[in-house]
Amino acid sequence: MTISTDNNLASYCAEVSSRARDASRLLAGLSGDVKNQWLVECANRLESHTEQIVAANRQDLDVADQYGLTDAEIDRLRLTPTRIGQIAKGLREIASLPDPVGEVIEGSTRPNGLQISKVRVPLGVIFFIYESRPNVTADAAGIAVKSGNAIILRGGKEAIHSSRSIVEIMQAAAVDCGVPADGVQLVNTTEREAVGHFLKLSQWIDLVIPRGGESLIRRVVAEATMPVLKHYDGNCHIYVDRLSDLAMSLRVVENAKCQRMGVCNALESLVVHRDVAAEFLPMLSEQLASHQIEIRGDDETRRLLPDVVPATPDDWSREYLGPILSIRVVETLDQAIEHINLHGSHHTDAIMTSDLAAARRFVTLVDSAAVIVNASTRFNDGSQLGLGAEIGISTDKLHARGPCGLRELTTYKYVVYGDGHVRS
Amino acid sequence: MTISTDNNLASYCAEVSSRARDASRLLAGLSGDVKNQWLVECANRLESHTEQIVAANRQDLDVADQYGLTDAEIDRLRLTPTRIGQIAKGLREIASLPDPVGEVIEGSTRPNGLQISKVRVPLGVIFFIYESRPNVTADAAGIAVKSGNAIILRGGKEAIHSSRSIVEIMQAAAVDCGVPADGVQLVNTTEREAVGHFLKLSQWIDLVIPRGGESLIRRVVAEATMPVLKHYDGNCHIYVDRLSDLAMSLRVVENAKCQRMGVCNALESLVVHRDVAAEFLPMLSEQLASHQIEIRGDDETRRLLPDVVPATPDDWSREYLGPILSIRVVETLDQAIEHINLHGSHHTDAIMTSDLAAARRFVTLVDSAAVIVNASTRFNDGSQLGLGAEIGISTDKLHARGPCGLRELTTYKYVVYGDGHVRS
Repeated sequence: MTISTDNNLASYCAEVSSRARDASRLLAGLSGDVKNQWLVECANRLESHTEQIVAANRQDLDVADQYGLTDAEIDRLRLTPTRIGQIAKGLREIASLPDPVGEVIEGSTRPNGLQISKVRVPLGVIFFIYESRPNVTADAAGIAVKSGNAIILRGGKEAIHSSRSIVEIMQAAAVDCGVPADGVQLVNTTEREAVGHFLKLSQWIDLVIPRGGESLIRRVVAEATMPVLKHYDGNCHIYVDRLSDLAMSLRVVENAKCQRMGVCNALESLVVHRDVAAEFLPMLSEQLASHQIEIRGDDETRRLLPDVVPATPDDWSREYLGPILSIRVVETLDQAIEHINLHGSHHTDAIMTSDLAAARRFVTLVDSAAVIVNASTRFNDGSQLGLGAEIGISTDKLHARGPCGLRELTTYKYVVYGDGHVRS
Repeated sequence: MTISTDNNLASYCAEVSSRARDASRLLAGLSGDVKNQWLVECANRLESHTEQIVAANRQDLDVADQYGLTDAEIDRLRLTPTRIGQIAKGLREIASLPDPVGEVIEGSTRPNGLQISKVRVPLGVIFFIYESRPNVTADAAGIAVKSGNAIILRGGKEAIHSSRSIVEIMQAAAVDCGVPADGVQLVNTTEREAVGHFLKLSQWIDLVIPRGGESLIRRVVAEATMPVLKHYDGNCHIYVDRLSDLAMSLRVVENAKCQRMGVCNALESLVVHRDVAAEFLPMLSEQLASHQIEIRGDDETRRLLPDVVPATPDDWSREYLGPILSIRVVETLDQAIEHINLHGSHHTDAIMTSDLAAARRFVTLVDSAAVIVNASTRFNDGSQLGLGAEIGISTDKLHARGPCGLRELTTYKYVVYGDGHVRS
């Protein structure tokens, strides 16, 4: 669907945003019970409307070729009764999480008797831009409403029919549960220009969360007039220390690199202390060869592994998202830390060591959203860290860092009660 | 002092920022003891160097006329032994506050044995732009270093000699206390263009805090490539409800409007329920007349107070910072809430009421950094709310809302310990 003129498109985007703002005022006052009833009702209805959703999904699959989707992408787009059941399960899990809204974060009574509480409240309106996986539609809507926010969903055009079907079911459930239907709106046009219009509407939209390729995210950051929660890329490191269990390191490096290559917390660059390089790198090279991983190394790595491609300076900051690993040999722990802080993307970095002092120094000085000791970088993920549900990962330092779940979609206000207090 | 060419200025700003970044890496690892010893040492040395500081301040006062400073501004610029004692006292108070760095905000052990902690860490480098009050120089430096951050101070040119003298003393104390001297740097040029250069250096600067007039802050927001912590203005409201103690309301409104007019938490606009308007407004009008406050009112206000100037639509969103108050009469609580959310600056808004349900509804639905029941808006202030020290007030929703103290200058990282955990 397209909306004829640019003027019409601008006013459509404004209307969606202002309706979201109105809905957000009502959502802020809803009880946890009402929101949870809605989540469970959505889960039930998605399951009982499986045929209807599968039929809508079929419309997307029928034209997937025209969008040039790969087989893997088509597979992620596909909805089956089992996958719809998983989406419903996800919504029930969100219902079971504690309600972040209204939490009294802290408080005190001042010497003059004034009572201060810092109370958690919703952000307001979230504009969410995401890739073409229809399960994300239900997930993001559930997380937003549970945290008391209205959400404007801008999904990939490749999944528009599937997402529309899911949103219509969730909106109908909203009406019946006493949740404002405009709390969840899908942008009903696939025109690229719509995003630009929304990014100007900071009077109604409090936060934009873009997910997808780095160029999309850079465009959003450049154009947005409201805050952006994001990560550009995940150039994640593992540093294998002088004192480390090399068999353990081998397993963890293999897992971080190979278990799933196309994700932001996959390993992209390995740093190895020279004292263990001669023993570790040949073992690793053999292991990675079985996964068809290409190694790009510095001079010392190439001395130990002569067949390795030389790493260019550019390699140190690359996020490959595929079967390539860069390797650098360092003389000291501090050199490793410096390399990671300089070239990494402050997303997820790990150390393999049995030396407590080294672990503590690494954890203190590596400036990343998650720093990990003796475990795979793949654990930096909302559900793995215990947040329950996640709408994205942030490498920003302000507001939220790392996985963003319900609480990261809230702010707080100071609530002050007095008895006619005046300032002297 | 000026730095001749634009190229030189750019490289000067880059050097200051990159040195601040290096210092911030060291500051992040300092113990609370070291930071507190430095704060106390700074306090002692500022007091023992009173003559030197007063002499530097004299240089600023000598040219204050040339900058067109008002008498009130000249008074705020002036340093006396008493005022230097107050600055020292402020630093000792910061030393006595808990260290935010290293606080474990929360944590858990996952079912697989992975240990997760969310640990508070410094932001890194803060660029602080502020007005010409030399006491702010010491205060901001103390808050930044105590929270583990390096700070680049860009003070008003009117106080450059005073600020330089204070910073030199604090830097000398740093060297002797094991704190990196580049943790506190004063921008050593008064050229306006320097600000623009710093705002581009997001690779080294994590946050900019601008204080001052709205046009300065808008310029910073437009040019900054890093996050900005700020408030544009404070169009603060008091709503006098249908059921309220009118004598108490009178005292609180008078305090909020008159106790200090030029500050962001002063009252600018009053909203009154029509059931009490006929009784309350004449009392108020008389009271405000004794302070020479001009009232600008809507039609109903003017019916009750015929001499009042009519309020234009523009008046509802004005921050007067002076002896003017706008007044509107409403029919319902919800109309008051809607007026405040639409026209206010989401800074500080208060209700005067004895009705618990009204208080709770106002507190929930008014979307401001601080919502106050039966007390003056003037209480939205770091020390009044118990934060101990404040570097600014934020009306943003992301990261920090309301007064910003030590904790608001920190972020967190996830620290994860495993025993060779891999993801399956």
